[in-house]
Amino acid sequence: MTLNILFAARPERWKTYEAPLRAALADAGIDAHLATEIAPDQVDYIVYAPNSPLQDFTPYTRAKAVLNLWAGVETITGNETLHIPLARMVDPGLTKGMVEWVTGHVMRHHLGMDSDIKRDDAQWVYRTPPLAQERSVVIFGLGALGMAVAETLVMLGFKVTGWSRSPKEVEGITALHGPGGLDKALAAAEIAVLLLPDTPATENTLNAQTLTQMPKGAFIINPGRGPLIDDDALLAALDSGHIAHATLDVFRVEPLPQDHPYWAHPSVTVTPHIAAETRASTASQALVENIRRGEAGEPFLNLVDRSLGY
Amino acid sequence: MTLNILFAARPERWKTYEAPLRAALADAGIDAHLATEIAPDQVDYIVYAPNSPLQDFTPYTRAKAVLNLWAGVETITGNETLHIPLARMVDPGLTKGMVEWVTGHVMRHHLGMDSDIKRDDAQWVYRTPPLAQERSVVIFGLGALGMAVAETLVMLGFKVTGWSRSPKEVEGITALHGPGGLDKALAAAEIAVLLLPDTPATENTLNAQTLTQMPKGAFIINPGRGPLIDDDALLAALDSGHIAHATLDVFRVEPLPQDHPYWAHPSVTVTPHIAAETRASTASQALVENIRRGEAGEPFLNLVDRSLGY
Repeated sequence: MTLNILFAARPERWKTYEAPLRAALADAGIDAHLATEIAPDQVDYIVYAPNSPLQDFTPYTRAKAVLNLWAGVETITGNETLHIPLARMVDPGLTKGMVEWVTGHVMRHHLGMDSDIKRDDAQWVYRTPPLAQERSVVIFGLGALGMAVAETLVMLGFKVTGWSRSPKEVEGITALHGPGGLDKALAAAEIAVLLLPDTPATENTLNAQTLTQMPKGAFIINPGRGPLIDDDALLAALDSGHIAHATLDVFRVEPLPQDHPYWAHPSVTVTPHIAAETRASTASQALVENIRRGEAGEPFLNLVDRSLGY
Repeated sequence: MTLNILFAARPERWKTYEAPLRAALADAGIDAHLATEIAPDQVDYIVYAPNSPLQDFTPYTRAKAVLNLWAGVETITGNETLHIPLARMVDPGLTKGMVEWVTGHVMRHHLGMDSDIKRDDAQWVYRTPPLAQERSVVIFGLGALGMAVAETLVMLGFKVTGWSRSPKEVEGITALHGPGGLDKALAAAEIAVLLLPDTPATENTLNAQTLTQMPKGAFIINPGRGPLIDDDALLAALDSGHIAHATLDVFRVEPLPQDHPYWAHPSVTVTPHIAAETRASTASQALVENIRRGEAGEPFLNLVDRSLGY
């Protein structure tokens, strides 16, 4: 039987994904009709980007799952027409890219590289950087990405603390959780990495109050979600010098508007949402694995619990 | 019996080392008279910095070893008055610091961070950085530091090649050696890390000829020794754009003179010899371990082969 797989995303995604998806389906031995238009009541699986025109899932009466192209699902979890399983993307390439982006910026702030990179004098000013074993990094969010980042930073020798909503055990790190653990996590965050999901409970995790709980001179790295930070509070903390620098990859509005104060702020580095980039080849393999599981009656990987919003 | 240990280095070193050395001696249970002045014919061990006033070892008739405070020994290996064992410093803290400095700058160039850090516009220009598994890094020099760097870069996922004078086998990396291997190593060096010793054979390893053998747009990272690079040839390769950027921590003359073109060159990052910094606490433990070995009749660690110059 030929499976009907609808690719519901913007045309530029189709250009990127058509070839690797067809290759991954062929590799898995799945006989599929993959297209951007299929009669709704004939569709078996929906490969989906939340910014697709498809917002009403009601006519997709026989579809078995919605397979998200991205890790982030916050704009789809509230969709009341969606009653079939929703899987988030956990792309090994995306995870690797995230680990590399975070590792690079943690090392950059740890070593104080900016003063060398932006140098405009000829002063040989000796300094001894601390070792990673003397540097405390806190990862807010211990999902798949946060865990992968934690493992790498531990391997590099940092003192790593993780904070999550619910209790977790992770070898080699101090794992804190809940509101009680948050105070300790903030106090330890010489470098804070934000990898929490975007939910009502995580909005403004860093705000005027919690920013003051971080050590003076702390660094903030946000490759997670824009709403995790109260932007006005962060700007005030940067202006006062309490926070030394913020490296931000995600924003409440993207692209970041040209008149946003983050662009010109000397203590802010803006990167254009590049930390968590899905790679088409590895992502296609992950999508096809879930289709194979659906057909084999095995549980889907990376299902979203919509009651929690992630 | 009390051992007489002469500390022969500049006064600022004594300030840094006296307390940790005394602590390490006490921890090892060694009864020692540690001082900056001792009658030469009474000295048992010499803790030594090559820029110390002590340059004539002839009167130190009963000394058993010279224990260098630094990794670099090129200014002492030619000393014809030195006939006792010479050990170089292999400080675990130094090695960690080197690995961190190299890892940071490899990640920085790999991710193309400088365009974000030095940004002076408000342009959201999307880009997909390659993954480490798509990036080839070549480490020139597979001594203790080169090996430690190689291990960490392998763990981070890079395609790592190492080049050394004599054949070596290192798990997870492509190990090349000798003049034949050099051509291959240069051709693979999207990012080159120089960790060769400073010997007549390694001077100008990167010169007008070898620089052209590197891929266009390559990055050079030199935490090794200044003379490994022909500076004029590097400046020409940077000006032509064949080499994208050089991050240099060591120079033929240090501090780097204020009128040196490296300071103002937009494609050069100067750091003030901070990559290979000995940490007094861990270095003191290493020095004392060699004294313990000498007294126990065990072979010294990290002996220098003066016929090779390292």
